[in-house]
Amino acid sequence: MPPTAAPPARATAVRHLSVPATTRLLGDWHAGGPAYVALADALRAALLAGTLPALTRLPSERDLARGLGVSRTTTSAAYARLREHGFAASQVGSGTVTVLPRTPVRTRTPAAGDAPVPDRRLAGPVDHETIDMSQATPSATRALHGAYSRALETLPAYLDGGGYAHLGIDPLRAAIADRYTRRGLPTDPDQVLVTTGAQQAISLLAATVGRRGEHAVVESPTYFHAVDALQRAGSRVVGVPPGDVDALDSAVRRTRARLVYLVPDVHNPTGSTLDLDQRRQVAAVAARHDVTVVGDETLTDLDLDGSGAPAPFALDGADPRLVTVGSASKSFWGGLRVGWVRADAQLVGRLAQVRQAQDIATPVLEQLAVVELLGGREQILPERRDALRARRDELVDLVRRRFASWEVPSPSGGMCLWVSLRRPVATALAAAAVGEGLRIAPGPRFTPDGSHRDRIRLTYTAPPETYPEVLDRLERAWLRVTS
Amino acid sequence: MPPTAAPPARATAVRHLSVPATTRLLGDWHAGGPAYVALADALRAALLAGTLPALTRLPSERDLARGLGVSRTTTSAAYARLREHGFAASQVGSGTVTVLPRTPVRTRTPAAGDAPVPDRRLAGPVDHETIDMSQATPSATRALHGAYSRALETLPAYLDGGGYAHLGIDPLRAAIADRYTRRGLPTDPDQVLVTTGAQQAISLLAATVGRRGEHAVVESPTYFHAVDALQRAGSRVVGVPPGDVDALDSAVRRTRARLVYLVPDVHNPTGSTLDLDQRRQVAAVAARHDVTVVGDETLTDLDLDGSGAPAPFALDGADPRLVTVGSASKSFWGGLRVGWVRADAQLVGRLAQVRQAQDIATPVLEQLAVVELLGGREQILPERRDALRARRDELVDLVRRRFASWEVPSPSGGMCLWVSLRRPVATALAAAAVGEGLRIAPGPRFTPDGSHRDRIRLTYTAPPETYPEVLDRLERAWLRVTS
Repeated sequence: MPPTAAPPARATAVRHLSVPATTRLLGDWHAGGPAYVALADALRAALLAGTLPALTRLPSERDLARGLGVSRTTTSAAYARLREHGFAASQVGSGTVTVLPRTPVRTRTPAAGDAPVPDRRLAGPVDHETIDMSQATPSATRALHGAYSRALETLPAYLDGGGYAHLGIDPLRAAIADRYTRRGLPTDPDQVLVTTGAQQAISLLAATVGRRGEHAVVESPTYFHAVDALQRAGSRVVGVPPGDVDALDSAVRRTRARLVYLVPDVHNPTGSTLDLDQRRQVAAVAARHDVTVVGDETLTDLDLDGSGAPAPFALDGADPRLVTVGSASKSFWGGLRVGWVRADAQLVGRLAQVRQAQDIATPVLEQLAVVELLGGREQILPERRDALRARRDELVDLVRRRFASWEVPSPSGGMCLWVSLRRPVATALAAAAVGEGLRIAPGPRFTPDGSHRDRIRLTYTAPPETYPEVLDRLERAWLRVTS
Repeated sequence: MPPTAAPPARATAVRHLSVPATTRLLGDWHAGGPAYVALADALRAALLAGTLPALTRLPSERDLARGLGVSRTTTSAAYARLREHGFAASQVGSGTVTVLPRTPVRTRTPAAGDAPVPDRRLAGPVDHETIDMSQATPSATRALHGAYSRALETLPAYLDGGGYAHLGIDPLRAAIADRYTRRGLPTDPDQVLVTTGAQQAISLLAATVGRRGEHAVVESPTYFHAVDALQRAGSRVVGVPPGDVDALDSAVRRTRARLVYLVPDVHNPTGSTLDLDQRRQVAAVAARHDVTVVGDETLTDLDLDGSGAPAPFALDGADPRLVTVGSASKSFWGGLRVGWVRADAQLVGRLAQVRQAQDIATPVLEQLAVVELLGGREQILPERRDALRARRDELVDLVRRRFASWEVPSPSGGMCLWVSLRRPVATALAAAAVGEGLRIAPGPRFTPDGSHRDRIRLTYTAPPETYPEVLDRLERAWLRVTS
C-alpha cells in the first residue's frame, strides 16, 4: 500500500516562539537608527548566533508589535527586511518562519587558495564580504600536514583490526599521560579517555556525572558550548564570576550541584588564569561538598605572555573529584577533533561506556596525528603563540585607539578580547555589526542568564590585514547604535 | 587551603547490583559442568559483553547463593575464580566488585604485523589466544591508505579555516547526495548531515526526534548500540519481529511511538532484507501514525548474493518521515568514523544544532578520505564482498557439519550468522565459550527484552584460518553446556 498524504511529520514541524521569549531573546535590541532595521538586525544576529534556531515560527506582526511596544509598521517592515535578506520565509496561514540563507557565503575576506567554507549554512553570514571576529577558531599549525603524513606511515599497523578504540589508541593515551606526568601530575594511561574533541569530553561528563534536574555550576561568562551540553543533559546551570571561589563554594552548597565546569587557564572569554591559592581553594570546594569539578585546559598552551599556569588543574592528582579536559583543537587545529578526559580509571571506564552510544570511538588516523603533534609541541607552540601575540597586540592597540570610551584589557593568553562597552548595548551592537558585514559575539552569549550586556568578545584568529576594515565596520555599527 | 580527606567522590562510586538484577542478568547460566565454573563464566561473559558494567558491586556470596538456589560454596568459589582471572576485586567491608583485567590481550590469533589491539580494556578477552567472533568489525579495505593519501593532497585548502564543518564538508555532502540520487532517491546536499559514524547519527535522532519517557519501536533482534542510544536518550524501547509490518503498525499505534528504528537491508543480525511491498507498508505506517521511521543502511553495500535492496529505504523521498542513516564503517573501515543522515533540510538543521553540543563536527581529513572512497566504490566493494562471501560460505559449512542439531541459515549479506541452537542456552554457551578462549554474542544481547535465548551471533570478519580452531572451542563449550 502506498504512503498516504498527510500533514508535515512531527519530526520536521517548526517550533513557535512566544512573544515573551522573543522579547527576552532580543534584549536591548533598539539602541539607535530606524526601529525596523534594528529589529531585523537583532533577529538576524540571534539567528546567526544560534540563540534563535532556524525554522522557528516568529510571533505574528501584531503580537510582536504589542509585546515590544512598537508600531505594527515596524514589525511588518522588519519581517520584510528579514525575508529580503533570506533569513525568513512567510507562508499564507503559517506566519513568518526563520531560515538560513542558501547562497554561498564566505566567513573571511576571500584570499587565493581559500577553502570552500565548510559550515556556511549554520555559521553563514550575510554576504561575500562579511568578516568573522566571533569564532575562536585558529587556522592549522604548519606542522599539521607533516604530522598526518607520518601518521599515515604508522596507520597500516591498525588496518587489520576493526578500528574501534573505545578508550583511544594506546600510543595516544600514553603520550597524553606522559605530558601530564611531565607537568607534575602523575598520570597512568588508564586515566585517559580519548574523545572526539573536548566538546565530547564535556558532553560525556555532563551525561555521566551530571544528573537531570539537578544543578551544575559554571563560570559566567564561560565557553557557551559547555553550557549547551550541560543543559541538553538536563542540568540546571547557574553561573558564578570567574575566579570567585567563595561564590563558587556558596553556589555549590546552595544548589547541591553535582558538577562544576571551570576554565582555569586563559579563561574563555576573559583571559584570566587561576592562581595557585585559588586552585587549592577549588580543590577544597570539591572535597568539602563531594562534587566533581571539571577543569577545561583546552587553552593552556595559548599562554601568550609566559606567565603560565601555576599548576595543573588537578594539582597532584590525589583527589579523583578534580577531572581535567584537554584538546588538540586550539594548540594544533580544530579540524582534528581530538580531545581527552583525565580522570581516575573508574570514571574513565564509565565515560567510555556512554561514549559508545554516542559515536563508538575517535578516528584512528586523527589520533596518530596527535601523537606526532604532541611529540613536536615544543617546536610547534612557540610559533603559534608568537603569531597570536602579534595579532592580540595589534587588535588591542587598534580598538583602544578607535574607541576611547571602551575598556579593552589585554588578555595574557587565548584568542579573544573581552571588551567592555561601558553601556549595556552589546546585543544591539552585534546586530548592527551584522548589517555592516561584521560578526562579533555579544556578552550575553557566554552566560547562562543573559547578563554581561555591556561586553563583546572579539577574536583575533582572523589575519591582521583585515583589522583596519574590522575597525571601520565596528565604528559604523557603534554609531548606528549610539547616535 | 589544601584539599581535605574524604570518602571516594560520587563520580567514581561503584554501582550495586541487586540479587534479582543479577538473576535476570545471568538468565539460564547453569547448563552443565561444575556450577561454580558456570557461574563465574556467566558473570565474566556478561562483563565482557558490557551487560554487566565494570565497577559494579556484586551481591554478597550468601545473598547470591540464596537467590540462585545454590550453595554458598558455589558462589564463593565463583567469585574466587573471577578474582583469579582478574575480573573481580574484593575489599574488606565493600564486597566483590567487577573489574576488567589490565594485562595486554589480543582479540585475534596473533599474526606478523598485527596492530596492538586498541580497545583491549573494554573488549578485552581472557588471554592471548582468545578468538573474537562477536564483533562485526571488518578490517580496512586495501584502498583506504591510498584514499587517505589523496585526501592529504586536498587538505591544504582547508587549513586556513577553523576546521569546524558542523554539517559536513561540501564535497562529501555532495558525494553522498549524488549516491542517493543515482540509486533513484533524488537528494540535495542540504539533505545530508555528516556525522561521526552512523552511531552518532542514531544517537542524534534519538535525542532530537525521540522524547524522554515516550516510546521507540525497533526490530528485535537488532543492532544493540541503537537500543542503547535510544534508551540513554530516555526512550522506552519495544521490539517487533524483523519484517513483520503488521506487528510494527500495531506497536506504533499502541505505544504512540515517536520514533521507529529499522535495518531494512541485510538486517543485523538476521541478514534479512525488506521486499518492496514491505517497504511501502512501512512508509504507510509512517504516514498513518505520523511517526519518523529511521532506516539504517549501514550494511546495504554488503549484499553478498547480489539480490540487492529493491529500493532505497526512503523510496522516492516524498515523505520526510522516512529518514536514512548511512556509514563508511562497514563498506570501508570502522576506524574512519564517518556516517551520515539523509533527511529533509529542516531536520538536518535541527540535528546539526544538537551535534554541536556533542562533538562540534567530524574531522575534515576523514571526510575527504570518504569522498575518495565513495568515488572508488565500484572497484572497492566487489573485492570486499568476495572476501566476505568466501568466509561466510566456509563458516556456514563448518558450523552445519559440526553441529547437526543447530539451525544455521546462510544470510544473503552482512557479516554474521544468526544461529539457532534449538535450546535456550545461548547465554550459558557464550559464557562457556569465554572459558575456552572464544567470544561469541548470545541472542539476548540483540533484544530490548532479553528474548532469543536460543540464538547466537557468529561473525565472519576474522580470517578463515582461525575457523577450525573456533569450531573446536565452540564444540568444547557446547559439550560443557549440554553434558
